[in-house]
Amino acid sequence: MPKPPLPAELDEFLSQPNPSVIATIDTDGNPHSTATWYLWENGRVLVNMEEGRKRLEYIRNDPRVSITVLGQDDWYHHVTLRGRVVELDEEGLDDIDRICVHYMGSPYSQRDRGRVSAWIEVESWHSWAVYQPWAA
Amino acid sequence: MPKPPLPAELDEFLSQPNPSVIATIDTDGNPHSTATWYLWENGRVLVNMEEGRKRLEYIRNDPRVSITVLGQDDWYHHVTLRGRVVELDEEGLDDIDRICVHYMGSPYSQRDRGRVSAWIEVESWHSWAVYQPWAA
Repeated sequence: MPKPPLPAELDEFLSQPNPSVIATIDTDGNPHSTATWYLWENGRVLVNMEEGRKRLEYIRNDPRVSITVLGQDDWYHHVTLRGRVVELDEEGLDDIDRICVHYMGSPYSQRDRGRVSAWIEVESWHSWAVYQPWAA
Repeated sequence: MPKPPLPAELDEFLSQPNPSVIATIDTDGNPHSTATWYLWENGRVLVNMEEGRKRLEYIRNDPRVSITVLGQDDWYHHVTLRGRVVELDEEGLDDIDRICVHYMGSPYSQRDRGRVSAWIEVESWHSWAVYQPWAA
């Protein structure tokens, strides 16, 4: 699998408010996946979770993740980023607001629960367009 | 997480040609994810891969998988199925044709490469609609 940095075309793709699914490893070693919002910033991926989420426990136990991003209008274009969570921040609602504005156009509505941000450093990636590798 | 069988509403949802992402564990223990077609049949998930795919090696080494299915028109509805591959079939193009008809309306165009089917038995699931659990 190719290493970063990503080609400009994929960088542009990842900057859109796309659907994505993040895979982690649970504390029993099973793969776990769930849909998530993300932000692509300076070659790193930001995701944000409510505190108390099981996924947070998984990441603290094993920081390795894989995130597959699907095109918002065409899921036959997709990019997968593999790497690890290098930083966890528990710093209020700034990040989730930034993410929510990106996806929904307004800040996050639920203000009464703690949130945790995870920054993912990308170690390798692959991309696909319809039936073939994309921009590799 | 709830156990099968799934509520009728989610059964109906999974029967649509939705985007999905499957998570496996690679031979170094890292999570791996990629977009995939799937079929939901009799409470099991069918996915099909070209022979020689790395993912097939991962599944043979560790059959545990997690698959997150996003609504085709609204990815804020999503269902995650966790379980394991209980059967691998290398039996020609029947399954990929069936899957391709489900998604694209016609049989699979590439006829010259071997395909392998994996049947996934679901052990637990979770679902989400917009900001809250769905049909749980």
